[in-house]
Amino acid sequence: MRIRALNTSASQSTWSQRFESALHPAIARFNASISFDIQLIEYDLIGSQAHAKMLAHCGILSAEDGEQLVAGLEQIRQEYRQGTFQPGIEAEDVHFAVERRLTELVGDVGKKLHTARSRNDQVGTDTRLYLRDQIHQIRTHLLAFQRVLLAQATTHVETLIPGYTHLQRAQPLSLAHHLLAYVEMAQRDWERLGDVAKRVNISPLGCGALAGTTFPIDRHYSAELLGFDQVYANSLDGVSDRDFAVEFLAAASLILVHLSRLSEEVILWASEEFAFVTLKDSCSTGSSIMPQKKNPDVPELVRGKTGRVFGHLQAMLVTLKGLPLAYNKDLQEDKEGLFDAVMTVKGCLEAMTILLEEGLEFRPTRLNAAVAEDFSNATDVADYLAAKGIPFREAYNLVGQVVKTSLAAGKLLKDLSLDEWQTLHPAFDSDIYAAIAPRQVVAARNSYGGTGFAQVRQALQRADERLQSAENES
Amino acid sequence: MRIRALNTSASQSTWSQRFESALHPAIARFNASISFDIQLIEYDLIGSQAHAKMLAHCGILSAEDGEQLVAGLEQIRQEYRQGTFQPGIEAEDVHFAVERRLTELVGDVGKKLHTARSRNDQVGTDTRLYLRDQIHQIRTHLLAFQRVLLAQATTHVETLIPGYTHLQRAQPLSLAHHLLAYVEMAQRDWERLGDVAKRVNISPLGCGALAGTTFPIDRHYSAELLGFDQVYANSLDGVSDRDFAVEFLAAASLILVHLSRLSEEVILWASEEFAFVTLKDSCSTGSSIMPQKKNPDVPELVRGKTGRVFGHLQAMLVTLKGLPLAYNKDLQEDKEGLFDAVMTVKGCLEAMTILLEEGLEFRPTRLNAAVAEDFSNATDVADYLAAKGIPFREAYNLVGQVVKTSLAAGKLLKDLSLDEWQTLHPAFDSDIYAAIAPRQVVAARNSYGGTGFAQVRQALQRADERLQSAENES
Amino acid sequence: MRIRALNTSASQSTWSQRFESALHPAIARFNASISFDIQLIEYDLIGSQAHAKMLAHCGILSAEDGEQLVAGLEQIRQEYRQGTFQPGIEAEDVHFAVERRLTELVGDVGKKLHTARSRNDQVGTDTRLYLRDQIHQIRTHLLAFQRVLLAQATTHVETLIPGYTHLQRAQPLSLAHHLLAYVEMAQRDWERLGDVAKRVNISPLGCGALAGTTFPIDRHYSAELLGFDQVYANSLDGVSDRDFAVEFLAAASLILVHLSRLSEEVILWASEEFAFVTLKDSCSTGSSIMPQKKNPDVPELVRGKTGRVFGHLQAMLVTLKGLPLAYNKDLQEDKEGLFDAVMTVKGCLEAMTILLEEGLEFRPTRLNAAVAEDFSNATDVADYLAAKGIPFREAYNLVGQVVKTSLAAGKLLKDLSLDEWQTLHPAFDSDIYAAIAPRQVVAARNSYGGTGFAQVRQALQRADERLQSAENES
Amino acid sequence: MRIRALNTSASQSTWSQRFESALHPAIARFNASISFDIQLIEYDLIGSQAHAKMLAHCGILSAEDGEQLVAGLEQIRQEYRQGTFQPGIEAEDVHFAVERRLTELVGDVGKKLHTARSRNDQVGTDTRLYLRDQIHQIRTHLLAFQRVLLAQATTHVETLIPGYTHLQRAQPLSLAHHLLAYVEMAQRDWERLGDVAKRVNISPLGCGALAGTTFPIDRHYSAELLGFDQVYANSLDGVSDRDFAVEFLAAASLILVHLSRLSEEVILWASEEFAFVTLKDSCSTGSSIMPQKKNPDVPELVRGKTGRVFGHLQAMLVTLKGLPLAYNKDLQEDKEGLFDAVMTVKGCLEAMTILLEEGLEFRPTRLNAAVAEDFSNATDVADYLAAKGIPFREAYNLVGQVVKTSLAAGKLLKDLSLDEWQTLHPAFDSDIYAAIAPRQVVAARNSYGGTGFAQVRQALQRADERLQSAENES
Repeated sequence: MRIRALNTSASQSTWSQRFESALHPAIARFNASISFDIQLIEYDLIGSQAHAKMLAHCGILSAEDGEQLVAGLEQIRQEYRQGTFQPGIEAEDVHFAVERRLTELVGDVGKKLHTARSRNDQVGTDTRLYLRDQIHQIRTHLLAFQRVLLAQATTHVETLIPGYTHLQRAQPLSLAHHLLAYVEMAQRDWERLGDVAKRVNISPLGCGALAGTTFPIDRHYSAELLGFDQVYANSLDGVSDRDFAVEFLAAASLILVHLSRLSEEVILWASEEFAFVTLKDSCSTGSSIMPQKKNPDVPELVRGKTGRVFGHLQAMLVTLKGLPLAYNKDLQEDKEGLFDAVMTVKGCLEAMTILLEEGLEFRPTRLNAAVAEDFSNATDVADYLAAKGIPFREAYNLVGQVVKTSLAAGKLLKDLSLDEWQTLHPAFDSDIYAAIAPRQVVAARNSYGGTGFAQVRQALQRADERLQSAENES
Repeated sequence: MRIRALNTSASQSTWSQRFESALHPAIARFNASISFDIQLIEYDLIGSQAHAKMLAHCGILSAEDGEQLVAGLEQIRQEYRQGTFQPGIEAEDVHFAVERRLTELVGDVGKKLHTARSRNDQVGTDTRLYLRDQIHQIRTHLLAFQRVLLAQATTHVETLIPGYTHLQRAQPLSLAHHLLAYVEMAQRDWERLGDVAKRVNISPLGCGALAGTTFPIDRHYSAELLGFDQVYANSLDGVSDRDFAVEFLAAASLILVHLSRLSEEVILWASEEFAFVTLKDSCSTGSSIMPQKKNPDVPELVRGKTGRVFGHLQAMLVTLKGLPLAYNKDLQEDKEGLFDAVMTVKGCLEAMTILLEEGLEFRPTRLNAAVAEDFSNATDVADYLAAKGIPFREAYNLVGQVVKTSLAAGKLLKDLSLDEWQTLHPAFDSDIYAAIAPRQVVAARNSYGGTGFAQVRQALQRADERLQSAENES
Repeated sequence: MRIRALNTSASQSTWSQRFESALHPAIARFNASISFDIQLIEYDLIGSQAHAKMLAHCGILSAEDGEQLVAGLEQIRQEYRQGTFQPGIEAEDVHFAVERRLTELVGDVGKKLHTARSRNDQVGTDTRLYLRDQIHQIRTHLLAFQRVLLAQATTHVETLIPGYTHLQRAQPLSLAHHLLAYVEMAQRDWERLGDVAKRVNISPLGCGALAGTTFPIDRHYSAELLGFDQVYANSLDGVSDRDFAVEFLAAASLILVHLSRLSEEVILWASEEFAFVTLKDSCSTGSSIMPQKKNPDVPELVRGKTGRVFGHLQAMLVTLKGLPLAYNKDLQEDKEGLFDAVMTVKGCLEAMTILLEEGLEFRPTRLNAAVAEDFSNATDVADYLAAKGIPFREAYNLVGQVVKTSLAAGKLLKDLSLDEWQTLHPAFDSDIYAAIAPRQVVAARNSYGGTGFAQVRQALQRADERLQSAENES
Repeated sequence: MRIRALNTSASQSTWSQRFESALHPAIARFNASISFDIQLIEYDLIGSQAHAKMLAHCGILSAEDGEQLVAGLEQIRQEYRQGTFQPGIEAEDVHFAVERRLTELVGDVGKKLHTARSRNDQVGTDTRLYLRDQIHQIRTHLLAFQRVLLAQATTHVETLIPGYTHLQRAQPLSLAHHLLAYVEMAQRDWERLGDVAKRVNISPLGCGALAGTTFPIDRHYSAELLGFDQVYANSLDGVSDRDFAVEFLAAASLILVHLSRLSEEVILWASEEFAFVTLKDSCSTGSSIMPQKKNPDVPELVRGKTGRVFGHLQAMLVTLKGLPLAYNKDLQEDKEGLFDAVMTVKGCLEAMTILLEEGLEFRPTRLNAAVAEDFSNATDVADYLAAKGIPFREAYNLVGQVVKTSLAAGKLLKDLSLDEWQTLHPAFDSDIYAAIAPRQVVAARNSYGGTGFAQVRQALQRADERLQSAENES
């Protein structure tokens, strides 16, 4: 729709008749998109094949013409895959490059391919086919990511880890429970992308430049060939809608939010202070001047890339703001950020999956010891008293005092003698020690979705079943 | 979970036992959220009532205690609605304010309300109830907005309007077709919010501070009372998940994208240069020094507010980036932007609906004349020749020449004499004039989703049915 | 320029003659700005007084009229401060409210105030006066923040703290050196705001609606009265420029970046795992159900508010994108985000200053012990060998081996016997123990800007002098 | 500091001694930066040469070693420029690639280059040198852009153009005045970048990994060789500061704001409705199916790219948020967005400069006619009456009535007969026609910075002088 040859001789260009002088070379470079839209080539070929078949099916082209076009496009695919077709900057965009090569291959019939089609609906079709495919790949990555989380969780049901709020130790947890929180996030990402896909998988093909076409086309036919669920109901909307790209970028941003949170935790866990995990050599790097260093590059880089994906989301929104209908050249800017976001999400998911699978090792001894060395069992003392009939608030206040006194004395709750307990309140008995042992503290939080071991085992089971079902579906 | 009284005397505060000195007044102000979270009060009361009923249902509280709590909360609702309960800054947050008032009303039993609950799951519950309700309201606004678009479209099937790409006249359109593009966008917004709602409507109640609770609660029971579809499967995820807020803000951003595009068009249409609409006094303002001015304030302000909603989306994403599990105080920042986005979306939808309903008038005479005064029928000349057997590309090139010549001569295509046409190409005959008449040009684009009048009438019918069905559902 | 009364009777409204029907009430509400632009009132009064004086100075108004206007405006200021002038929603905007009150107070001469002025240049003037004042306040906060950092640094020159890269211990530092990094950031913020102020402090007064005015005004005169450095050279630019707001929001975003980094560190330091600081009661809060908790709310909230300021920056940029000249109603959206960013920056700086001054205490014993318990002196072993003539890379590789062996043996470098050292390399002698003692390791990094104690003392001195000079200037 | 060879044999890698197994290939790819940081190569070479000279100057290396290093680096520059040195993905990053090649060229002395330096300060130095250079280039582009604006303005002092507020015609302008508004914006951009450059041009070289170095280096010496104005005062700050990148991206965003505004205007001006400019073939493109189309691709694409630069700004801010000191791998993400923003700003400025220079032509006849066909002289009728002693507000109201009546009658103000004028108010006389002629209306706005021709001529003069002075400086 909007492309102009770099070197226009009257015989070559399809739209040079209205123009008297050539495009300024710097402007031609500025307009060109071939450097990035070459990524669409396979989708462009599929889309054009479906379009050619539809034209023949509707009698707009002869069956023979249709077959020639399909075969010619197939040959371009082979040439591209073999590396013999490599359009350069002079091609300006991938669609122009394909069309020109097609005409070289099949002759004048190649010029018929663009019948009843415009760049606007063509590019929209390609981009949706691309994104549909990429969403499928990302969802597969999300399942693999869940799989390694589940594997680690299954191993660590009985491993305890301090649970934090405000990065202060709050209540001890099963490490499996902690890891399952990320399984839930990834599952939500997977489902959300499923919803996004519904609005990606709609065909704009046949919307023409903006108004439809005078040819007796069958949009549902080409849509079906391409696996689209629906066709756009309005041609202006069809060529100007980029909601699907924004929706994808928002979903991608949330994936990065989740990965950035896990990354932050891994970085903390790998610090000398936490020391909850050991980094393996296969996923970390050293320093050129500090021989002792082993750096958690992967989670740091993932955390850093979060900004990049948020940035692409904002960029796309800004580009769309205030555009009048229908197509505007601004929309050429819908691709680079999208492509980069896709690549970033896939790269980050893959790297984090490898990291969790073989790049770090939890340290159960250290973890189990950690939860025994703090006051994260204080709530359970209050619960203990409440269970013996003391009003909770009174119990809570009493425990606040105990914590303060113990801190001052450099003692933990488990270090108090039975005498000391009973001085605090006569309701304490020797079973207090069992009640505040970390393992019991965890086990007792047996409400649905809680960290109690029984709950965690059920949650693991449910997550596994859900994941198997998703894996089968994909 | 994280609230501390401004003036803590030992008898008043629930968590002052561990603390020896009072909070610095400036810090107390900095931490306080009552100025905005008061908007959650009705949701907090409903949530607390459900929690109290659940506690009684599970035997954690006596039936009598449960009833007293429910009644006390009901009374607070009445007081709030009557304006007699107006918590000030000293309350710090709405939850604390309610709890304190409850204890004044029902005595010590009020202190039992927080059993088996934490601020973390409580606030999460309130926010989801609020947002579920607001999404419902916004969806209703989206239907009303579609309704006025449909009404205008129905009136203007036969009104023509220039169709643009690159803001250059491309092909003439039915005005109804143009307006229906926005119906499609609004419908997509409506559907998208439906998907968002699925992930909003999940209950975190009973997740506790982060780990669940030792009390034998029934999370599904309270969830059902509150109309939630599901409960969070993992307690850490339940208290730290803010995906739903991001998803809503992304959907809100897309609504503003659509409204900003329509706004841009209305502003153009209202300009002296386009003059496609007349602004009515009820929706425009004047100037204090230029007596002739009539300004399209509504669409300008809507376009301007687009940035605000994008900003809230970005803010929420940034706040979430890199937060370790589970709850962190950073999450208190999830509300103001959300509340403002909700208010902005509702305000913009309402204003644009009024504008389209009674604030502007299309000028059919002017519009119909406009499409007769340009070259947007050039494609149809090429189609005319193609239909007579001239290869399309040859036809296209010929028309390019015609346009150039005509432009130079200050003529439109319709002004060419039959002689002139036939000099250009012998295939032209007197039916060329009918073929390039704007009304025929529009009618001919009769492909599915195209601007042809027959298509537009069908599209109107389908949109009306879809809308009725959505209106019935809501 | 763009304001219309809510209830327009012919006698009241200044621009109702062109309009036949009243503004729709919902639209009036949508357009209204009084709820937030009331914050500009004092600046509006000052600006109007200067304008009135200029009109009299230039003979456009009589001296008497000028004096009456100035006195009337003065009275409004008193009424506002005393709370007797409280314009409500019906006023629509603060400028209209002031003008109406002025006319009540001084009669018809009040209507002359708007001579040779438009809302566009008036609002622009107010906003710049506001922001200039706020920037001054924020810079003062930045100096106070530096002051407490310097005080802490001065106390802790000899306190050691692990230095990190990748959150892995890298090399030990003087705690003062670490704190001084934040002094540098705050100083840069202070300087940057100074540059922003240059582009804030330019007068648009007299630019009129967009084109200047036919009255013989003296823009330099009113600019001088208001303390502006310059006047806008182009009237269109003067009424449509919002660069200064963007620049401020970018500078504000950087302040929050710095505060968020310090916040992250304080949160880490306050964790049980790091335990480098003790939080004081005056700046932290507890939990309603976990009696042991003491939460670092202040740094968490500051970190959370970072998103909010970034969001305002983005919002402002989006609002400006693609606006044609000159004034558009979209620009009304320049205020709320700006006001909120100003309040947020001031609040965060104040809270962090209090936190550092009295809300936390470093734990020198713990800190000094920490640096003795890791391998952050490994570089110094390599340096030791290098100083004895061993090529650095060879030395580096050797130390890498030593670290690996020691880790496996559960030993630190200081625990190796002289025999063990000499087995590793004969160049080691008993002075190796002194060379790798943390204090020596720190002292040895004596390059300019390094952590060596001598350097740190000089840096403290320089920072103090610079700060004194800035304090004197402000 | 943080790089690890893809294939580590003990003899090759500088930090493999501590590691037992190789990096996972997918992780190596994920970490690699060579694909983009190759853009830094020339800056890396310059920086390393200065470092080598400093080491020799301080006696840390022998003079001979220093010379060998400088010569080797020089040879790499030649090889790179000739295309014989093309590091691939296996090099991981440009610094590693250079170091390896250097050692191939000069032998073991190459390994001494990294003495007293770390990747952290090295990369920081390179990035600043790069950005300083690019800022200089962008400022040069800004001057060229101003130059073509000035040239157009000089031609069009007497060409009138409607002035708009709210995209409604407000008051007529000199076209030169309109164009000069953009000169002011570009000049502000130029000045702002000058302020940014102050904070870019500070040397981190010698800050080491984070703490400085034990070697007796002279940071001021290398800084001077590299043309830095200052050195970082604190080593932690020196390696972790990325303020300068954010500041640049904010300034770049404002450049795009300005260009997007001009783009919007050009797109409007090129529409059939405005028709204020003719697009030339050298800067516009056609359509493959609509032979009449001539599209303003350049301004559309510039407007579209605005989002991209805003996105990079946000991305950088997000990456920095909440990072603890000192260096973190997240900071590797500081480059791609920065590089792309630089390229985008340069490309957009160049394209818009070409567009204004040779890609469009203003249509003076059409423009002059336009301002005669509207009510934008209404203010001047009120002024006319006011000058004859009628109170302005009374005059204003009267004119409001006149406009309404005239609109209804389909007349312009100039079409009213003297009788009609005098019926409206007896003060009107035959000089009213001269007073409301567009040229007089423009001329009368002779306040400083206003559109009056005399003012515009002075403004042109001042802008030219300022520009000449800036051109001389650069």
